[in-house]
Amino acid sequence: YSSNRRKLVTMIPGDGIGPEISCSVQKIFAAAGAPIDWEEVDVTPVKGADGNFHLPQKVFDSMAVTEVGLKGPLATPVGKGHRSLNLALRKAFNLYANVRPCKSIEGFKTPYEAVDLVTIRENTEGEYSGIEHTIVDGVVQSIKLITEQASMRVAEYAFKYARDNNRNTVVAVHKANIMRMSDGLFLKCCRHVAGQNKDIKFKEMYLDTVCLNMVQDPTQFDVLVMPNLYGDILSDLCAGLIGGLGVTPSGNIGEDGAIFESVHGTAPDIAGKDLANPTALLLSAVMMLRYMNLGDYARRIETAALGVIRDGQILTGDLGGSSTCSQFTDEICRRVESIN
Amino acid sequence: YSSNRRKLVTMIPGDGIGPEISCSVQKIFAAAGAPIDWEEVDVTPVKGADGNFHLPQKVFDSMAVTEVGLKGPLATPVGKGHRSLNLALRKAFNLYANVRPCKSIEGFKTPYEAVDLVTIRENTEGEYSGIEHTIVDGVVQSIKLITEQASMRVAEYAFKYARDNNRNTVVAVHKANIMRMSDGLFLKCCRHVAGQNKDIKFKEMYLDTVCLNMVQDPTQFDVLVMPNLYGDILSDLCAGLIGGLGVTPSGNIGEDGAIFESVHGTAPDIAGKDLANPTALLLSAVMMLRYMNLGDYARRIETAALGVIRDGQILTGDLGGSSTCSQFTDEICRRVESIN
Ligand SMILES: CC(C)[C@H](C(=O)O)[C@@H](O)C(=O)O
Ligand SMILES: CC(C)[C@H](C(=O)O)[C@@H](O)C(=O)O
Repeated sequence: YSSNRRKLVTMIPGDGIGPEISCSVQKIFAAAGAPIDWEEVDVTPVKGADGNFHLPQKVFDSMAVTEVGLKGPLATPVGKGHRSLNLALRKAFNLYANVRPCKSIEGFKTPYEAVDLVTIRENTEGEYSGIEHTIVDGVVQSIKLITEQASMRVAEYAFKYARDNNRNTVVAVHKANIMRMSDGLFLKCCRHVAGQNKDIKFKEMYLDTVCLNMVQDPTQFDVLVMPNLYGDILSDLCAGLIGGLGVTPSGNIGEDGAIFESVHGTAPDIAGKDLANPTALLLSAVMMLRYMNLGDYARRIETAALGVIRDGQILTGDLGGSSTCSQFTDEICRRVESIN
Repeated sequence: YSSNRRKLVTMIPGDGIGPEISCSVQKIFAAAGAPIDWEEVDVTPVKGADGNFHLPQKVFDSMAVTEVGLKGPLATPVGKGHRSLNLALRKAFNLYANVRPCKSIEGFKTPYEAVDLVTIRENTEGEYSGIEHTIVDGVVQSIKLITEQASMRVAEYAFKYARDNNRNTVVAVHKANIMRMSDGLFLKCCRHVAGQNKDIKFKEMYLDTVCLNMVQDPTQFDVLVMPNLYGDILSDLCAGLIGGLGVTPSGNIGEDGAIFESVHGTAPDIAGKDLANPTALLLSAVMMLRYMNLGDYARRIETAALGVIRDGQILTGDLGGSSTCSQFTDEICRRVESIN
């Protein structure tokens, strides 16, 4: 579709600092003239006729129309039957690939430089199956479920992502030396897909070896694809290398839609005080724009935001400055207007 | 027992560079006058009457007498029924706690300084149960098995280790937000043991959060205790922070014995060329001496080895030098003789 037609996006502001940082993103999008309209929805679970709590119908209706969502941090309400509301959403919309680019941010002091990698995490099964039993008292089993279908799907996505983003190598991360059958199946699928995508280099590495090499020299990595739990771990590790969850974007990609989200917490201690850092949600929104083929707006907004961070004059507290969320946001708006 | 009585230790030299580095350790022990005699055993699996491959009886006989082993790297022979010979040994002797201290080495360039932590890994169950099934074609499950018995045992060991080594805090590492029952049981055991060891501080953290915080500031950690796979990952990550597997020791502690081992590979490319770095095996042997209440020899050997590395004149290739294994070893011997 052409970029001058306006598009509707489902906005889930979330809890704690969620509303503030969502508002910041909306302001910056407006300043950039991005052709996006927002439909805000609240995802607090509601009690259904069956007595169980469900995601409200509104979010399904909205996503059915928009097919794209942007989501702030969510607190999981206690006792409402969800392990995590974040996971409930990934599951509800069958968002099978969790994509987290980690790119060093200029001007940001970390022990590492020139990191530029992407973790792609299977997002629907594995250790997150939720299937657990007590065998006898004091003996519990949890089931890690690996299917060919989900493994193929995420492997195909990883290679497609690599090609679309001019990346060279996909590493499949596994422990098939230990979990021969489950990780073995995952690996077999990756090998199969690698065979059909010979323009992209393919490697296999043990998860422990990846962790060790990652902290020694993260610049050796490009795209990494892996089962659910390994992605949970590795994506956080990699976020740590470039400055933490406050500056790392994330996207959950499905067949019928995608939700982009900041993966940091709700920061209740600073909520409502205009102190929050909107960068992670903003960069997630930038990923979203690229996903929607609005790459030009993405580039302008990203350039403006990274420029403000690089210059280091107007930063929120967690970024080492003393500016408010509004001041940081306004400075990005000011810049974005002057970038062509 | 008194330190002037000589003690017998089972030595499993291992494959590749194993024999060279074992020899180096033996030389240094001799130079230090450590009251240790070695019984060398080969652990290559042998075919039993049942047609299956087993660890040779010799290693059981030897360990029954010595109760302490030192082990170089092992290659797992293909098609002999073992996932890994390393794991087979941990299992055979019920070595329930895998202990890996990670301490920054002076003179060694890494992005981190002043790291001084210990990972304690449950070493017998969890994701390493080996129980896997194909449910239907393309659908595989692996079982993570957590028992109260093994969890209590390793938690108790972690607190005892902390106290014996003047450490302050034990962090239980888990994903009980996802694996509520299995990691939940592990966590419950840790909490219980923490309640009985109030002199040691106790914290609980998610594995992903630990990974993120670890790469941002590893100095915040002290003792960490966790299920099997998490320990595999985190111990390698931490090894990466201080210089890799070539300089990190490891001990596998059981009720009836312990095996100390270097956890790097067999390095077949440099095997037999007098180029190997014996540091990881030597520092594992130092851990072993402490375990045997021979702390004075441990201190002298450790001081000598770390001194050679700190001075940086005589180093093996992987440590950034150009000396042979023999030269490096001889220099440690020379120094150890002059340390009281
Ligand atoms: C909130 C939590 C359940 C989640 C996970 O474990 O996947 C989080 O850590 C993440 O990475 O998005
Ligand atoms: C050799 C391998 C099976 C082993 C493991 O996975 O535990 C290794 O990585 C380790 O950490 O000792």
